[in-house]
Formats: sequence, C-alpha cells, structure tokens
Amino acid sequence: MRSLQEKIKQEGRVLSNHILKVDSFLNHQIDPHLMKEIGSRFAHLFSSDQVTKILTIESSGIAPAVMTGLELQVPVIFARKRKSLTLSDELYEAKVKSYTKQEINPIAVAKSFLHENDRVLIIDDFLANGQAALGLVDIVKQAKAEIVGIGIVIEKSFQNGVELLKEEGLRVESLARIASLENGEVTFVDESHYC
Amino acid sequence: MRSLQEKIKQEGRVLSNHILKVDSFLNHQIDPHLMKEIGSRFAHLFSSDQVTKILTIESSGIAPAVMTGLELQVPVIFARKRKSLTLSDELYEAKVKSYTKQEINPIAVAKSFLHENDRVLIIDDFLANGQAALGLVDIVKQAKAEIVGIGIVIEKSFQNGVELLKEEGLRVESLARIASLENGEVTFVDESHYC
Repeated sequence: MRSLQEKIKQEGRVLSNHILKVDSFLNHQIDPHLMKEIGSRFAHLFSSDQVTKILTIESSGIAPAVMTGLELQVPVIFARKRKSLTLSDELYEAKVKSYTKQEINPIAVAKSFLHENDRVLIIDDFLANGQAALGLVDIVKQAKAEIVGIGIVIEKSFQNGVELLKEEGLRVESLARIASLENGEVTFVDESHYC
Repeated sequence: MRSLQEKIKQEGRVLSNHILKVDSFLNHQIDPHLMKEIGSRFAHLFSSDQVTKILTIESSGIAPAVMTGLELQVPVIFARKRKSLTLSDELYEAKVKSYTKQEINPIAVAKSFLHENDRVLIIDDFLANGQAALGLVDIVKQAKAEIVGIGIVIEKSFQNGVELLKEEGLRVESLARIASLENGEVTFVDESHYC
C-alpha cells in the first residue's frame, strides 16, 4: 500500500536492525485517515470471504481493526492482555511470548463472542515473530471457528512470523512488507528486488 | 444519544449498583457502526472548538477517539498504561488510581506529540470516579496545551467524576448519562426526571 509505505519512509524511525518505531501514526499517535485507508484495503482483500467477526489484540490493533469492521459491517473483538474485573466470563486463553520484553503474557477472549460458525479475520499492527498472531489463531481454533486470513499492517519479512503462519496454511495479507532495517534504513520487499 | 441508550438497555449487564458491563459493543467486542455514530456526535459537539489533537487512553477509548479524529481530521494520541520498550522518548506521566482494582497505575504520553499550541479534546469510554480523565487532564497541563473539553461515551452520573471535572472548570459532554444502576436496572438521567 503506497500511502502506508510513504508514511513509514517519512515518519518511521529505525532504532536497530530489528526495531522500527511508528509511534507517530500507529502505535501511540494514530492517523485516523490512514487507518480508514488501511481498513478499506483489508475489507477489499477479504471482501469475498464472508467474514463475520474481526479479531485483534489491544492496543495498536484496535484502530485498523475497527476501520476494517466498519467497512465489512461486522463486529470487532479485541483480545485482552490482562484479565480485568469486568471480564469475568468464561474465557478462551492463549499465551504470547514477547521477544522484546522476554516474557510470556496471557491473552483472553470471552467465549460468548466467538462461535463455531464464525468466519474470523485476524488483524494486527505488526508481524515479527508471529507470536501474537499465533495466540489469536489458537483462540479462534479453541472456538472451533474458521480463520479466513490474517491482515497485517506492517510485516517485518526478515523475521520468521510470516513463515510460521503460512506453515499453518493461513493466508497472510500484509500492507507493507519490510525486507530490511539495516543501515538505519527501511527497505520494502518490493523495492529490494531492484537492489 | 438515543441509539447508544438503546444499545445499553439491550446489551448492558448490570453486575452491581456500581458496575455496568458493556463488553458486547464497547469494552471487548466493538460495534464499529455505533463507534462511527459516537465519533460524529463528538465531532459535532466540538466542531467550533478548533481541536488540533484528541487524547484518549488505551484500550477502550481508542475506537470512539479514532472515529472522532476521522471526522474532525486531527490525530489521536492514546496514553499508554505501561512503558513499552519502543516508547523510550521523554514522557509526560501521570498516576491514575483505579477504585475497582485498588491500585495506582502510571499513564504516559510522549512529549513529542503534545505541544503548547495544541487544543486538545479528551475522549474516554467511561466516566466514574474521574481518575483516568484527571490523569489525562494532568498530562495536557504538563504540555501547557489547552483542553477544549472532555467527551465521554458513558457517564455514571451517580459517581463523583463529573463533579470533579466540572470543579476544574472543564466542559464535559457525555453521550449517555446513567442516574442509577439500582435493582439491576439502568436508569438514564433524562429518564429519571419522570420517575
């Protein structure tokens, strides 16, 4: 997605060979107009898949997921990272390993919102090691619902998450695919062919 | 806002005299169409206030805030509840007391996203004791920016948050105002006049 790539080039900050900071439009400050475009793009990509629910994870997945849900006219569920007092229902739970923080965190979705006949589109902001996405996949499988695919805003294609998901037979659609962050520079997959 | 009140009546679950659970459309599952309506309503209410930034707090504030930002064509910032590895900038920080969990949690916003000349609209999902909103107010004041007002999706008018904010001279616009949750029933402020 051209406008997303341009935004990443303009505002993304490369902190290391593995870390891209996009806090100015996705992870802390949000650009609502760009989120709308992202939602339209995901909705277009999965328009013939009879999606009934969108599943994401708090917090940065929420904005792109809600815009996609608006376009596809389906509800959005965000998995909770911590149990809260008012989330007392029976839960589907999964464990997500964070490589950056070196910890394992539980995520949870109330059983009442995911059903066997649901066709679920998973949306997330970043795909790196794929652990968050695999946690969401696990939850959909526990609900015996169908996963129609995974929509990712920014894929770090040089990490193994996308492979892990494809090994599971899952369709992954990423709107920006980063081949490398080396030398403090963002190189997209479609650019890297010309290098 | 009539459609919001109806949704609360239909899907809200009263867990005690103080706790209303709206996990089916706001706090866990999200109704994107309703969020769009909520965003339009806030945008209308603050249309002549030259808003330059919207400030909310993760996670449930994000959906209504982004829809408001889309309509007002301004960026949305969500305060972080925990420091994350990639949020390493200088931060404005505030402490938020949670009555339900009996703990004090830090919230933070990167200094780079709030400026002295900003006119900030604060958006949040619930207003009860007002602690989260007061934390956001504190952050805007640290940035020496102007607060044009506070937009709340559901106000529990029988708790003291709204008074605390008004004592600070702040304009509070709540789309649903709950007078009571007694006897397991939701009574809105505009209904309670007729009781």
